[in-house]
This record gives sequence, C-alpha cells and structure tokens, in this order.
Amino acid sequence: MSKRNLFYAQSGGVTPVINASAAGVIQTAKRYPDQIGKVLAGQNGILGALQENLIDTSKERSRAIEGLISTPGGAFGSCRYKLRSFSENRTEYERLIAVFEAHNIGYFLYNGGGDSADTCLKVSQISASMGFPIQAIHIPKTIDNDLPLTDNCPGFGSVAKYVAISTQEAAMDVASMCATSTKVFILEVMGRHAGWIAGASALAANERGDAPHIILFPEIAFDRDRFLKRVAECVERYGYCVIVASEGASTADGKLLSDQGERDAFGHAQLGGLAPLLAEMIRDALGYKYHWAVADYLQRAARHIASQTDVDQAFALGKAAVQAAVAGSNAVMPAIKRTSNRPYRWSIEPVPLSRVANREKKMPRRFITRDGFGITPQARAYFEPLIAGEAYPQYQRGLPRYTRLKQVLVPKRCPSWRKP
Amino acid sequence: MSKRNLFYAQSGGVTPVINASAAGVIQTAKRYPDQIGKVLAGQNGILGALQENLIDTSKERSRAIEGLISTPGGAFGSCRYKLRSFSENRTEYERLIAVFEAHNIGYFLYNGGGDSADTCLKVSQISASMGFPIQAIHIPKTIDNDLPLTDNCPGFGSVAKYVAISTQEAAMDVASMCATSTKVFILEVMGRHAGWIAGASALAANERGDAPHIILFPEIAFDRDRFLKRVAECVERYGYCVIVASEGASTADGKLLSDQGERDAFGHAQLGGLAPLLAEMIRDALGYKYHWAVADYLQRAARHIASQTDVDQAFALGKAAVQAAVAGSNAVMPAIKRTSNRPYRWSIEPVPLSRVANREKKMPRRFITRDGFGITPQARAYFEPLIAGEAYPQYQRGLPRYTRLKQVLVPKRCPSWRKP
Repeated sequence: MSKRNLFYAQSGGVTPVINASAAGVIQTAKRYPDQIGKVLAGQNGILGALQENLIDTSKERSRAIEGLISTPGGAFGSCRYKLRSFSENRTEYERLIAVFEAHNIGYFLYNGGGDSADTCLKVSQISASMGFPIQAIHIPKTIDNDLPLTDNCPGFGSVAKYVAISTQEAAMDVASMCATSTKVFILEVMGRHAGWIAGASALAANERGDAPHIILFPEIAFDRDRFLKRVAECVERYGYCVIVASEGASTADGKLLSDQGERDAFGHAQLGGLAPLLAEMIRDALGYKYHWAVADYLQRAARHIASQTDVDQAFALGKAAVQAAVAGSNAVMPAIKRTSNRPYRWSIEPVPLSRVANREKKMPRRFITRDGFGITPQARAYFEPLIAGEAYPQYQRGLPRYTRLKQVLVPKRCPSWRKP
Repeated sequence: MSKRNLFYAQSGGVTPVINASAAGVIQTAKRYPDQIGKVLAGQNGILGALQENLIDTSKERSRAIEGLISTPGGAFGSCRYKLRSFSENRTEYERLIAVFEAHNIGYFLYNGGGDSADTCLKVSQISASMGFPIQAIHIPKTIDNDLPLTDNCPGFGSVAKYVAISTQEAAMDVASMCATSTKVFILEVMGRHAGWIAGASALAANERGDAPHIILFPEIAFDRDRFLKRVAECVERYGYCVIVASEGASTADGKLLSDQGERDAFGHAQLGGLAPLLAEMIRDALGYKYHWAVADYLQRAARHIASQTDVDQAFALGKAAVQAAVAGSNAVMPAIKRTSNRPYRWSIEPVPLSRVANREKKMPRRFITRDGFGITPQARAYFEPLIAGEAYPQYQRGLPRYTRLKQVLVPKRCPSWRKP
C-alpha cells in the first residue's frame, strides 16, 4: 500500500478529553511512517475539509501534542455541521472527496457522536463509488454517553466525575446551612435525550439519606405532584433536599419540562432553564428557600478534574483508530468492551459503523429505581469505574497549563468553496 | 488564669476552607492544656449556643479533625441568624452568657464575615458588663472578600481559583465551537456587593483577546448600550465573547440588574438570575447563539480545587485566634498582612474588632480598568498569589473522601430556650 495522508477532525460538542483522542491519533500515526504521511486536521471539524483549511500537525511541537492529553475544548476547532444526504447534496460530498484527493488523503478519522458516525459511514461509501476509496474510521466521543455498542463514550466519564463531585460538595454546603437557610438545592446538568449524566450524580451518595435525593431523568415522565411530594418528604426527613435534573426532563406527552411555552413581552420564549423553573415550582407549592445552579459548559470543559479512566480510554481509541486504518479496516468504530466490573477491565473491539450511526442508547430501565428518582446498584456498578482516578493537568501560577496549537495550515490546492 | 473551655462556631455562608480554620482552632487548643479545657462547637453556629447544642470536639477522632482541612461545607453546621442589638433584644445575649457560664466557656471564637464580627464584638462587651467576661476573637471568613483590614478573607482564594479555572475551561469550549455554534458565553458568579470574585476570573486571560472579555462588577454601573456594543466588538474581533457577571451587577440607580420587577402569572417575581437575563438581552439585540452557566453553590463548595494559599491561611488564622486567646486578647480579629507580592509573603496581625464590624471592602476603582470591563495589572498582582497551589483532597473510588463528624453533644445544663 502506498503512503497516504490521514485526515482527522473533531465534530459536535467538545469534551474534556476529545484532545486526548487527537493525541492518540497523532502520536500513533508517527509509528507507521511507511503507511501514513502527515496527519492533517480539519480546522473547525468537517468545515476544515470543505474549506480546505487543513492544519499540518507536523508543525506542532511534540510537547504540544503531548499536552493535548490534558487540554479541554477542541484544539483544532469543532463544528455543528451535518452533511445532508447524498441525494440532497451531492456537491458537498464531491467537494470533500476532491479535497481529500488533492491532499492524498487515504484515511478519514472522524471524532464525534451519532451524527458524525453517519457522516463517516457516508464518506466511506461515497468515496468508493467515486473511484477514490477512503478508509473511514469513527472515533467515539460524546459526554451524553448515548452511542450504542460501546461500554461508554469518551468524555462521559469526566463529566460524570465532575457532576458527582459537584453534587457531593454542594450538598455539604446545603446540609450545613439548612437549619436556618437554604432547604432545597437544584443542579441542572446536560443530557437532552439520555439521563446518563444525571444518573452519575448518584455516585455522590454513600449512605441512606445522602444527596442527591431526587434525580430527574429524560427517560422517566415528570409528574409534578409526585415530585413535590418527594421534595417535602426529603426536607422533613433529612432537613434538606438535593435535586439533580437532566435538561431533558420531560412530561408524559414528551414535551420538555423546560419548554413551558411562556412568552415575554416581545413574544420570545422565556429563557431560564429547567433549574429555575423547578425552583419556582417548589417555592410556589412548598415555600422552601432554595438555590440552583446550571453547570452548562463548566461540566463539559472541566479537564481540571477529569477521570483517569476516561483520559486513558480516549487516548486508546485514537490509537486504535490509527491501528485499524493501517490494518485496512473501513467503516468501523473502535468501541470499548467491558470485560469485568471489579476490577474494571476493558478492551477495544471494532464495530461496523452501519450498526452505530443514528442510534441512541438511553439509560436502561433496570438502571433506574422503581420510583424513578434514583439509580440501582447495577447502575452504580456500571458508573463507578468510569470516574476512577484523577488525571490532573499541570499547573502554573495557580491555573492549569493548557496547550494552544499553532494551527499552521497547508497550502491550498483546490478552488475556494462556498456553501451551496 | 484558670482553665476554661473554648466555644467555636461557624457563621453565615460557608466556604471551601472554613473547616480548615476549625482544624486550626481545635489542633492548636490542644497545645494549651493548662489554659484551655475542651473545644465546644456550636451546632449550626450561634444557634448551637442559644439552644445549648454544643458539640464536644474531643469526641472526634484526631484523623477526623485533620480531615477537616480538606472538607468543604460547615462541618458543625452554620446558620444565618443575626443577633439583634442589645437594646432590642437583651434576653438573647443574656441567654448566650448563661450558656457560656454553665459550660465554663471563657473563649468565644466566631468564624464569619462582617455581621459575625459585630456579634463577636457585642459578646465581648456584654459579657464584661454582665460580670462574666469572655474573650471574644473573630476568625475572618467570607468568599466575598469584603472584610476590611485584612489582605484577603479565607474562602475567597479558593472561589477565585475555581472561577478563574472555570472561565478558562469554558472559554476553550466556546472558542472551539464558535465557528458554527455558540458565540457568547455568560458565567454568573457570586458577590452581591463587591466584585472580587468576578474580578478574579480575569486571571484566566494570558494574552490579549483571551477570555473573559467582559466582566460586570457591582462597583460599575451597568450601561446596556455600552455592554452590547462591547459584546458585538468581541464577537467581531475574536469570534466569540465570554462574559463573567457578578450577581450584584446594578444599574446607575443602584437597582440590581437581576431584579427587573417582572412578575409571573401569580404575581411572583420572575426567577432566573442574571445570566439568562443578559443572554436574553444579547439575543434580542444582536441575535447571537449563547450559553450561560450559574455556578452558585458549586463555586462556594469546590474544595476539590481549593487554593493551597487559601487553605494555609484559613488554618493559620484559626491557630492565631487560639494563640491570641491564650495571650489574653479580646475583641480582636487576626488579619492577614501582605508583606510582598512576588514572592508572596504574609504575616498575621490582630486588628481591633471595632474597626472591622459592619464595614464592607469593595474593589477599589484602581483595580478596575478605565472602561469598567476588566482588571488592572495592580489587581492581577493582588489576585495571583491567592489562587496559588492546588490543595487536593484525598480520593476514594473516584470521589473526594470528605470528613463527616460524629457531632456528640455535651449534656445540657440550662433550661431549654425558645426564640423570643
């Protein structure tokens, strides 16, 4: 096989460890100088390929590449850009293949969630039909943990760790204030379609009565009366109540709880998120003093307290993707296979992309307690190893020393591109 | 001097390091067995004294006391309870002194902010006038950093560190997404009257153009047009804009920006906080896609990333308070005196409580840039040493191993108390 370049891009929402996968790709590619030329990274994800903005990773210092292992965000830039179907927009795919051909790219490594898995599969199929076959490998990544066929998704373990620690810490704060002040604390976390992140907050609890007392999952229809009853019970029993709510919590008709259809004076939907809405509900019905927090990007970028398991797996999947590429694989995703809970053991196995794309893995019902407000021991056994170990970054003058890349672009060879 | 017991209590909002001061008190008191008997801690702050709920700290294992150094929240419980003036409510003070007398308490160590300094002073004055003189020492604590006469307040350095790191991390997330998605990120932080916490977020910036691009201080009157103009300029220039807003940001007439006087269908004030309000303002005027976070208790409890300087100072002040007590001091607060910026050097010196109570230290104007949106090099030199060092807690199974006390109460000797 002749030597060809490798294209790598980050797609969709970033994670605390997506750059660890990038480091795995770049460092491993160097070990195959006969098969792989340069690693070219798309600037801002797939847009970098369409616009021919290709970052020459060989221009970065090897210390910078090593530094990616402990740097959050997307070091090459990511994007939210879904390629339309082939029939809808043939020119976009043709453009991709033209750029890849111009830069002798034989490997397409795409680091993303469910949508990107679909794009990755299409690139593989279309390149073949266009006579310039490209091996497309998908590297899983999503804090939502909703990809099928893999034990978990890189990014999730670190967010789970951050959310469990934050729940534990905030609960200690509330517990010490509740005699005379705040009785209810609400933490809103991410996970629009699946309750994995919210569920992981339960790791904060060690003993009966420990926070979080109530978890709201997207998988369980929200029932206002049952919820309020439980809040009151907790405050009666423990003196306070800590609630972790997934942003995707919905009512039985499938409508997001946070979308109450209220409009402001200009007719705009009222903002405010789920946490303040629940706070208001509790205040109106029960009158308790409350506090609420919305972690938003803080949870998704919290590399300062990343899980070592997560960092290791993110790196290993980047490495495995390159190894699969040089071994001739195509249209696959290296996935994590759990072989033991305690001690946690895992291996990496490829799964066909056709079985990954566009499928969502929700929290199974057996992971959620019968009352719908907590997690089962089975879920705890699943979550626990994913948050193990503290992969601290290096610090300088009190702040993490995160890596910034130079992002040197390779000269363009194609006509410029305008979005059709 | 005969041997007398020492009363210690935590007051008001807790901090990530208030328990380090408690450890400083308890461990140091043991070194003076001739002067100090037991350390009795108020359960839920001053309420513990009024209700005669006194925790016998000698019943805790020494490992648990050591563990307090790395445990957030208030280990003995705190409270929001302001004693009224002596003329308004003499019986409350009389009750305090009666409880102290019944338990042979000669030292009153109160760990709190400005209000508590006032209470501490009153206890000293009134106990003398009632013929049972008690030495009252105030141990400073407040994340708001608004006590006078001390270089900084324990709790602040750790919150500053958390907020600077969170700003840095979230900004990296936004920077990698802004080509196609989120352009504006808003982080709301605490500090109702003073902008110290918001100001410390600026430590996240190293180079021109780095986030945070806009800081909203309570000290600077909010001007909608100037604010929106700056947001647009940042997005134009850098591709994105990160805003850190103090919850206390106010308009020129002194009205909190977050209190817009809007009412819901039931006539209740609209909740939602400042961050979503700013987001809505930006969306309506500029149309940018945004995200926002409200850190709330997460920032105040984040012991997992506490500043080593802060932990050291919190412990040292608890220790100094005991030393001042055995040296016969009364109505004082040990304060931190900065003797050098680089390297950071500090010492502890007592200041009279009469000069501390009920005074608020705001960000000086010279710490804020002329445009009102950032901090000066002078402020940076002030902030930087306060976030230095990472005082990591120990971990077990992926989570910090925080200490829980047994809280054994001493037998009551007084009639029961009912709030007058």
